[in-house]
Amino acid sequence: MSIKITKEAVLDYHAQKPAGKLGIHATKPLQTQYDLSIAYSPGVAIPCQAIAEDKQQVYNYTAKGNLVAVISNGTAILGLGNLGPEAAKPVMEGKAILLKKFAGIDAFDIEIDATEPADVIHIIKALAPTFGGINLEDFKAPECFEIETALKEQLSIPVMHDDQHGTAIIAGAALKNALLLVKKEIGNIQVVINGAGAGAIACAKLIVALGVKPGNLVMCDTQGVIRKDREELAGEKSRFATDRSVHTLVEALKGADVFMGLSKGNILQPEHILDMAERPIVFALANPNPEINYDLAVNTRKDIIMATGRSDYPNQINNVLGFPYIFRGALDVWATAINEPMKLAAVEALAALAQQPVPNQVKKAYGVESLEFGSTYILPKPIDPRLITTVSPAVAQAAISSGVAKKHIGDWEAYKESLKQYIE
Amino acid sequence: MSIKITKEAVLDYHAQKPAGKLGIHATKPLQTQYDLSIAYSPGVAIPCQAIAEDKQQVYNYTAKGNLVAVISNGTAILGLGNLGPEAAKPVMEGKAILLKKFAGIDAFDIEIDATEPADVIHIIKALAPTFGGINLEDFKAPECFEIETALKEQLSIPVMHDDQHGTAIIAGAALKNALLLVKKEIGNIQVVINGAGAGAIACAKLIVALGVKPGNLVMCDTQGVIRKDREELAGEKSRFATDRSVHTLVEALKGADVFMGLSKGNILQPEHILDMAERPIVFALANPNPEINYDLAVNTRKDIIMATGRSDYPNQINNVLGFPYIFRGALDVWATAINEPMKLAAVEALAALAQQPVPNQVKKAYGVESLEFGSTYILPKPIDPRLITTVSPAVAQAAISSGVAKKHIGDWEAYKESLKQYIE
Repeated sequence: MSIKITKEAVLDYHAQKPAGKLGIHATKPLQTQYDLSIAYSPGVAIPCQAIAEDKQQVYNYTAKGNLVAVISNGTAILGLGNLGPEAAKPVMEGKAILLKKFAGIDAFDIEIDATEPADVIHIIKALAPTFGGINLEDFKAPECFEIETALKEQLSIPVMHDDQHGTAIIAGAALKNALLLVKKEIGNIQVVINGAGAGAIACAKLIVALGVKPGNLVMCDTQGVIRKDREELAGEKSRFATDRSVHTLVEALKGADVFMGLSKGNILQPEHILDMAERPIVFALANPNPEINYDLAVNTRKDIIMATGRSDYPNQINNVLGFPYIFRGALDVWATAINEPMKLAAVEALAALAQQPVPNQVKKAYGVESLEFGSTYILPKPIDPRLITTVSPAVAQAAISSGVAKKHIGDWEAYKESLKQYIE
Repeated sequence: MSIKITKEAVLDYHAQKPAGKLGIHATKPLQTQYDLSIAYSPGVAIPCQAIAEDKQQVYNYTAKGNLVAVISNGTAILGLGNLGPEAAKPVMEGKAILLKKFAGIDAFDIEIDATEPADVIHIIKALAPTFGGINLEDFKAPECFEIETALKEQLSIPVMHDDQHGTAIIAGAALKNALLLVKKEIGNIQVVINGAGAGAIACAKLIVALGVKPGNLVMCDTQGVIRKDREELAGEKSRFATDRSVHTLVEALKGADVFMGLSKGNILQPEHILDMAERPIVFALANPNPEINYDLAVNTRKDIIMATGRSDYPNQINNVLGFPYIFRGALDVWATAINEPMKLAAVEALAALAQQPVPNQVKKAYGVESLEFGSTYILPKPIDPRLITTVSPAVAQAAISSGVAKKHIGDWEAYKESLKQYIE
């Protein structure tokens, strides 16, 4: 069931006229002299003045309220590394059109030529009047932490670095459901995270917020276990340093309940997962090649719950389950941030949705007759039309409860109904 | 024939859902799992790598080559002044959709919170990888001169401050045709420009490039004639200071052949234009109220050629005749700049087009049976479908001839034919 894609087909798709993947259009009539005179000169002066008198009116008279910037400097493109802003454009265009497709959000892809965190922060702050929200993408660690933290502090629109929180939210929901299936308490489990980049750090933070004990968490990077006695340990990594007497990934895996890989393909062997505890949970999220091949893992241990980042195996941990709906919910209540309660609400909503019976249309699209909550279905499928009506309201509600919403929702049923307009 | 617009209608148009005037869409299929896997992960890595290996490929695999930024900081919005970036958004969205409507160009409106020229330059430079061209808009003088000059020097994509050059190009074409009708040589005429902002300075520069003798040009600002003996005269204004013994606008107008107003409404009285030379040319471009009312001017002098910025009178000097087609031509040959030869080519093309017989569809749209080159028709109408097939090739050709084109056009007839795709 693997999807075959060729280099030629991908380049053809991108090169076909019009080149790239994104275009703009007028959303209002623009045919007559009258239309032109109200859309542009002289009529346009009227909304300009209304906004000058009350800045909040920019949400009523312009596209700002439904417009997200997908911004990158290309320093950490996919798994490819620092290729610069131009090379980031195909990814950012892709993300922009996914926001549109899955949640009706207009998005501009913005690739910036800047790498120093202070400079990046300054530039993105200056751009903020344009947008209703900012999705940071493919900024490398550790700079990404400083950049996101500063922008969240200094801006009053939602800012999210999706490489961190998108991955963490989906993996967190998957973990909750996997633990339910293997009947383990999150407060008791031993977790090994391999990788210490933006996604790995964010996963560590989120699963601790969900209940994993920091002492039960071991994080490894390319030099092995991140230990407190390691020299020159700085920044975010140091928060997850351990003083347990384990030094290597292989040692750390012995008896572990959960492995989360955000590292490199094929670094785990069958014997490593055989060393794990009973009913182990393995999230091998390296793309395109997981830390251990899906089939190899499930053939090695029948009691495993296995997830990857790939669409051609069960349990895909895919950011697209999160970011469109999180921004939709945040924009709909004019949230001034995407905060922890909103992220946790997204986790809960995704986890709960996977436990519900799957609509027939989703089963049909996947060509399977049975698709139900269990070890090969711990997360909703990206095409599930209930995602937007479930995740976005949960995020919007959390924004309101946590005090970051500038607009409230009067009728929740009407709001959920209105979200169906974005389902294709 | 004046178009009535009400405040309520304009605000309704802007507020109607979706708010604002601009949206994005995917230009490629995005329906199946296969589509998603080539538009985004994992397939998107392939164009990223191709661009990383050869940066020029960004024009083949992304929307960059057809994407213009309409950027403002809101310091000089229309005639309204410095209202800030949020209040600029309705204008910039309007300009973006005009680029799309008239020339098929995708445009992002970008409103930035930055006013210091060095800072504005730094920010826009950082954004440049995203775009194929940059249209600066509503930056106040004198900062706009420094900003545009620096960006033109430092960037290798076309940059144009339309408030300067758009206005100048259209006014320049109108002046050429008006002079032809009144049978005066451009080298002999006396010109008075009232106003010394971005548009006025650009008009002065352009008409000098067209042949007006600097000594025959008098520029006035709010303090009267800009004279060489005036104290604290700096920057661009000083280039047009006169040492003639005139001190006021009224004095300067005596015997003048041409008046160009880029100032304020209703500052001219009938006696002032009666003082001008025979067959005077008056371009009263203040919006929405011209320096002298159209009807009042033509009733005062039957031998006048009168133009305004208004769509409800003959001879509208409207930037929309220029910027869409200038950017179209520049983008189509991957021009690294919009230089003087390209602007002059646009002037010539517009002037020549007005001398051609008018297509019936244009006459019909304007509800007139006769519309032909003469004192009430010195410029093409904005809806003229020949604009794109005339102006864009002229600009593209000038880019090639002047050595700023990175891509050449093999078959000009085929190119002109291809431009018809953008005519609605």
